Amino acid sequence: MRIAVVGSGALGLYYGALLQRAGNDVTFLLRRDYEAVTASGLTVRSINGDFRLEQVATAFRPEDIGEVELVLVGLKTFANSSYRELITPLVGAKTRILTLQNGLGNEEMLAELFGPDRILGGVAFLCANRGEPGVVHHLGAGRVELGRFAGVAEEFLAEVADSFRNAGIECNIVKDLKSARWQKLVWNIPFNGLCALLDTPVDRLLAHPATRSLIRDIMMEVIATANSQGLLEPISFEFAEKMLVFSDAMGPYMPSMQIDRQEGRPLELDAIFARAVEAGTVRGVPLPKTAMLHSLLAFVAAV
Amino acid sequence: MRIAVVGSGALGLYYGALLQRAGNDVTFLLRRDYEAVTASGLTVRSINGDFRLEQVATAFRPEDIGEVELVLVGLKTFANSSYRELITPLVGAKTRILTLQNGLGNEEMLAELFGPDRILGGVAFLCANRGEPGVVHHLGAGRVELGRFAGVAEEFLAEVADSFRNAGIECNIVKDLKSARWQKLVWNIPFNGLCALLDTPVDRLLAHPATRSLIRDIMMEVIATANSQGLLEPISFEFAEKMLVFSDAMGPYMPSMQIDRQEGRPLELDAIFARAVEAGTVRGVPLPKTAMLHSLLAFVAAV
Repeated sequence: MRIAVVGSGALGLYYGALLQRAGNDVTFLLRRDYEAVTASGLTVRSINGDFRLEQVATAFRPEDIGEVELVLVGLKTFANSSYRELITPLVGAKTRILTLQNGLGNEEMLAELFGPDRILGGVAFLCANRGEPGVVHHLGAGRVELGRFAGVAEEFLAEVADSFRNAGIECNIVKDLKSARWQKLVWNIPFNGLCALLDTPVDRLLAHPATRSLIRDIMMEVIATANSQGLLEPISFEFAEKMLVFSDAMGPYMPSMQIDRQEGRPLELDAIFARAVEAGTVRGVPLPKTAMLHSLLAFVAAV
Repeated sequence: MRIAVVGSGALGLYYGALLQRAGNDVTFLLRRDYEAVTASGLTVRSINGDFRLEQVATAFRPEDIGEVELVLVGLKTFANSSYRELITPLVGAKTRILTLQNGLGNEEMLAELFGPDRILGGVAFLCANRGEPGVVHHLGAGRVELGRFAGVAEEFLAEVADSFRNAGIECNIVKDLKSARWQKLVWNIPFNGLCALLDTPVDRLLAHPATRSLIRDIMMEVIATANSQGLLEPISFEFAEKMLVFSDAMGPYMPSMQIDRQEGRPLELDAIFARAVEAGTVRGVPLPKTAMLHSLLAFVAAV
């Protein structure tokens, strides 16, 4: 499959590298890592085994890639205003666009720009960070849950899922993409938020009873909000405990928002927080702790 | 009046200096500032005019002070376990003990140790910080609201209030000490908590709409909790707006908890947060944002 990776952060580099290794024709649209990857290829340091791609097709401008079958979007959501500029040159009649970004609202924005019938959504449960230019660290997990946004044919969704699986990526097709998105938010909201706010990795937050309990409270708010959104299958409250145990295995992992803050980038507050709080508020579900975390992050992002 | 100041932080140094200047016989129990004040006296830099006390009675151990008429307690509440050791040597048959400390539970602990009939409580609305040893900075406000805890005679309360007024301290006698304590918590909980958590002075918190609104939300929780405690006069919700405007005049003030955190001291979480959250919880008043702030501070205090 001819694939363009737009937004080559940890997620884009990692999945793109696996897809290329499995024989897909992948081109990476790069900024920070353009020179390093063009000159020396891409190195994946993975808990599943390191590997290196010597030859990687790179582009600094999307016009240099041209039409592809699949656009894999891994942009930070605060860069979503660049969708039109970055994706338009890649889109022909048959192009599908898969967003694996965090939070809510990405499929809708893409659908508005490129038409709903070519949009797929996916939720990535991946622990990965960028290393030095040309290196990505895969630290844990990696499952992708794929779903249709609107009119994409089941066959195409199955084809994409097969490409992922052939590349060694655990990949499920879900009936309810919205539910998968909210499941990820149950993790993203407390961990991205609190790790960024307190500049603390996952394990230290979980080790202190006050913050462990706070994480659980926030998860409960997000689950209650999720279940007010008309999901095909509601998320059980036990899911919070499951996510806590899942997170206990992550060790000193630093979520992307913590790294974004450390490196002075904007934070993904709109997609991860503002839309979730709004979704609860309009349905009359109170999310006081989630809203407070959003307020605190809005403050620290502004200083 | 023969007075011992126990806990010579900014509050103890400032009020003690004013009381000595007005002719009271004041001895300061000192730790950090003992050598500086013993050698060179005490300097007050105040918005109401600087002054300097050349001769100051100092002690490093309470045994060197002996019995006094009034013990003025300005200890950090995390040092309340030292009440017995620090105050016992100062107490004779007629000694009264006035705590101007923050938060809840101080009068009760003193009453348990020294008997309820000699305990007075006061709430200080004071912006002051310690400077170099021997110097205290009075940055704003300074009103004290005095109240009886249990069996203290009205006459003695009036006498203490007169001593404060004669020293130039704005001082009211309040019928309901509990109400005054909670009024101060309406300020202390959001400002001490958020300034310490975010290491940010008052004016910057107030300048950002997200944190300004969060401060108001937390104030509303504290007012609702206060009003569930059987106050003689409930606190109106407009009091929050009044406190916001009052705080707007403080400029870049750093509350004591922020400075405690900067200087690696414990935080006054028990008196200011834990007891307030518990007071609400047992009355069925939800304080999610106050409780969350407490959790976050418990975490940062432990790292």
